[in-house]
Amino acid sequence: MELRLSVCVLLVLCVTGSVNGGRILVWYTEASHWINMKPMLETLVDRGHQVTVLVPSASMFMNSSEPSRFQYEPFNVSLSLESMEKFVEEFLQFFMYEMEHMNYIQVYFRFIEIMKKNFQTTLTLLEGVVKSDTIMKKLKEGNYDLLFSDPIYPGSELIADILGIPLVFSLRFSIVNNWERLCGQIPAPPSFVPASVSKLTDKMDFSERVFNFLFYALQDIIFDQFIWKEVDKYYSEVKGTPTSACELVGKTNIWLMRTYWDFDFPRPFLPNFKFVGGIHCRPAKPLPKDMEEFVQTSGDDGIVIFSLGSMVKNVSSDKANTIASALAQIPQKVLWRYSGKKPDTLGPNTKLYDWIPQNDLLGHPKARAFITHGGANGVYEAIYHGVPMVGIPMFAEQPDNMMHIKAKGAAAIVDFKSITTEDLRNAIKTVINDKSFKENAMRLSRIHHDRPMSPLDEAVFWIEFTMRNKGAKHLRVQAHELTWYQYHSLDVLTFILTIVLLLTFIFIKTCSFCFQRCCGRKKTKTKAE
Amino acid sequence: MELRLSVCVLLVLCVTGSVNGGRILVWYTEASHWINMKPMLETLVDRGHQVTVLVPSASMFMNSSEPSRFQYEPFNVSLSLESMEKFVEEFLQFFMYEMEHMNYIQVYFRFIEIMKKNFQTTLTLLEGVVKSDTIMKKLKEGNYDLLFSDPIYPGSELIADILGIPLVFSLRFSIVNNWERLCGQIPAPPSFVPASVSKLTDKMDFSERVFNFLFYALQDIIFDQFIWKEVDKYYSEVKGTPTSACELVGKTNIWLMRTYWDFDFPRPFLPNFKFVGGIHCRPAKPLPKDMEEFVQTSGDDGIVIFSLGSMVKNVSSDKANTIASALAQIPQKVLWRYSGKKPDTLGPNTKLYDWIPQNDLLGHPKARAFITHGGANGVYEAIYHGVPMVGIPMFAEQPDNMMHIKAKGAAAIVDFKSITTEDLRNAIKTVINDKSFKENAMRLSRIHHDRPMSPLDEAVFWIEFTMRNKGAKHLRVQAHELTWYQYHSLDVLTFILTIVLLLTFIFIKTCSFCFQRCCGRKKTKTKAE
Repeated sequence: MELRLSVCVLLVLCVTGSVNGGRILVWYTEASHWINMKPMLETLVDRGHQVTVLVPSASMFMNSSEPSRFQYEPFNVSLSLESMEKFVEEFLQFFMYEMEHMNYIQVYFRFIEIMKKNFQTTLTLLEGVVKSDTIMKKLKEGNYDLLFSDPIYPGSELIADILGIPLVFSLRFSIVNNWERLCGQIPAPPSFVPASVSKLTDKMDFSERVFNFLFYALQDIIFDQFIWKEVDKYYSEVKGTPTSACELVGKTNIWLMRTYWDFDFPRPFLPNFKFVGGIHCRPAKPLPKDMEEFVQTSGDDGIVIFSLGSMVKNVSSDKANTIASALAQIPQKVLWRYSGKKPDTLGPNTKLYDWIPQNDLLGHPKARAFITHGGANGVYEAIYHGVPMVGIPMFAEQPDNMMHIKAKGAAAIVDFKSITTEDLRNAIKTVINDKSFKENAMRLSRIHHDRPMSPLDEAVFWIEFTMRNKGAKHLRVQAHELTWYQYHSLDVLTFILTIVLLLTFIFIKTCSFCFQRCCGRKKTKTKAE
Repeated sequence: MELRLSVCVLLVLCVTGSVNGGRILVWYTEASHWINMKPMLETLVDRGHQVTVLVPSASMFMNSSEPSRFQYEPFNVSLSLESMEKFVEEFLQFFMYEMEHMNYIQVYFRFIEIMKKNFQTTLTLLEGVVKSDTIMKKLKEGNYDLLFSDPIYPGSELIADILGIPLVFSLRFSIVNNWERLCGQIPAPPSFVPASVSKLTDKMDFSERVFNFLFYALQDIIFDQFIWKEVDKYYSEVKGTPTSACELVGKTNIWLMRTYWDFDFPRPFLPNFKFVGGIHCRPAKPLPKDMEEFVQTSGDDGIVIFSLGSMVKNVSSDKANTIASALAQIPQKVLWRYSGKKPDTLGPNTKLYDWIPQNDLLGHPKARAFITHGGANGVYEAIYHGVPMVGIPMFAEQPDNMMHIKAKGAAAIVDFKSITTEDLRNAIKTVINDKSFKENAMRLSRIHHDRPMSPLDEAVFWIEFTMRNKGAKHLRVQAHELTWYQYHSLDVLTFILTIVLLLTFIFIKTCSFCFQRCCGRKKTKTKAE
């Protein structure tokens, strides 16, 4: 069969009566998370809702003084923008350069140190909201219908609880999925659901399953000790009553997960988890004139797009030269988003840009490959347009993301720490010349597009649903009301086992008693005889 | 906020190029299952697909000689229509009348006997397909793109495997969900997912959780011994190689579950399970003239609609009189689908009909309550139109269905075996006069309508998706490749436990050795001294 039906799902909004839009409060976020959230917020404004975004004074990516269709609620934090930028720089330095010179023990302790610092930073940001009477008064008087949050910065669950309004999360992942699993109650059997940041796929051999199991367990213990307890203490202090942060997170009405089965491995989930990966992707727009001219000079060889994301704008001079040298050896033209010093080895086929229209380039007919750090936004744009990838992942979920695409046959991975010109050149050549990479990228693209509803429409539907119904109670599983041992039926098993043992004991005792009586009699009889 | 946005999602089909529809083979089914399947098949025909339905010669509800938009593939079975009807009569008699005079042991053995007979009947029907060279040749030459099946009669998974085509299931449930759980790998923690036909809800106390746990376990053992082993044997014989029926069922590409969170309790599920309950519901059409006139005579009191479903057309004279007497005591006008002898106690407010346009009556503004046997089709029509229910469940999942609606506050239940005039009258009066029942029915109706896509559109989308993509591999969890102990990480746990025990043993032994050496030396020293 050749089914050439192309189904376009057109969302037609029939607005009846007067449009009294909802009032949506948006939690502060940063970097690619903010980039991802914007299209949803734009659509919500288009649909008549009032969107108010909380912006800390030390925000690097959110600018409350910029003209915008959103309302901003700026708040002061006892952190300067410089200190935030310094922390990010320190964070990047560790993952990009320091780690390679450290042993495992050193990496572990430095990582814990950075995590603690990160946690302190997030609490300082939160203080700007909860400890400010003015802001809290404004939020209470705002009569918001919903709090919408990318929970990279915690606190939104606390504020939603204080304001008594529904909460919708938008997230790619939490470390080892501990928010989704432990608070959201999403099932995650370690036998086929790899923990996030574990770099595993859903196909695990025995040793990988052991690793995954221990990874879940150990991270849960570490998080419980270092993070959850601290957050509980803070929330309890703010609320004035003993408060469990995880319980508040568990009250989230809808979890908009920024993945889908084009990118993620199929797994069990719950009715209030919606998979809306690729929310920000859209068809390519025409390129700026000079860029289009450069692209056209590539001929049949086409172009390679190269970006390390919104946070990493340049790399060390050594790495830059290694990379530039590899790029110089491929026949494609390369567009590299790079703000550092021009590398000496830069070939004539490579052009550096402070900024590139990444989505438009990936959607260009001449796009042959995408060299990426593996951030979810970029990876999704490449999936949307069916472009094979070379991943140079660095931190957070980037190695995981690239491992997903590699497992699906649409990417090669190069290690940033030990990168060589040869490795990178070979990887680019492989994903371009080995047809299977393009075929697999196109397969993922087909899966991405061939779904009942676009991810943006789906996300907006569930946000509006939550406002219309003041929550989404009918999607909340009863598991939230169970303890962990009740959830796993351990109390039931113990009870049944006790009964079985008791019955066995009684049976044995009865048999033994009967046997004794019987033998006893026989013996007495024999004696008597 | 008063959000008066009413969102209509309009599915506009843009057909590009020539429409080369798919070829869909439909597995034979019966009674309400066939009624439910028809709207999907009609829509598939509307969308340019060719639909061929397998019809056994002993079918009660499917008529291959009737003019229809489907193609029929009739096949002979060594069973007469009369014997099928006699078996159904025997089945109904047991559940409706015999059971009340039996003790638990008698019920159990009679039930097993009926189940075995039912199983033999299904195998006899299947023989009509697999043992007929003509039919098998026709099916092979039919070049079908998909097998679509309500698996109430097993065998479709075998034929899909033999023909090498994708399989889509449409089902309300299997007993204790053993197909979905054991073969489809859907997670079902017994702590909050009640086994189907258990009459439990998702809120269980300790004793109910013990019951649910044992119910799952015991039914699984019984099914394994009485059903699965037999089916495996039969399938292996047909295929000529050892074949696991459950493995074949597990290859189902899409499971279209005929429930949704308006009716079912929220639970974990998998990406290839789609919840499309209410697929056959539609807005009410005008009633036949004389029926409308009768309905209008009800005034403000409105009407009560009463049907015991497509299989039960009449009841014993005793029960009929008890029921008619209760109906005579309510102020509403009653429309009762009943083909038996007119009961003596029938009041002037009640009219008997051989057939009623149930959906149109439930959608009538004068509908006040629906007296139902609790079949999923009728229950869904009542949810669609927001009508409170009085359930008189009898067999299969009917008691379960009514328990769901009762738990959601939109129904009262009356026991058919011990029904009294007073019970029924009070139940009807309660659901009509206690406003909470109507409010809850309307809440369920709102949940039913307020979803991103209509259930029919969603079902059709996934059927076409499976054809377009020759399956739905990207939605299949890796759990299918694991054994039960691997799935639950029992091998991993055993390994970790062994290591821990071994390390503890080595540690103790080392300590003990050191202690002995230490004390030994001291002793020797003391001795020497």
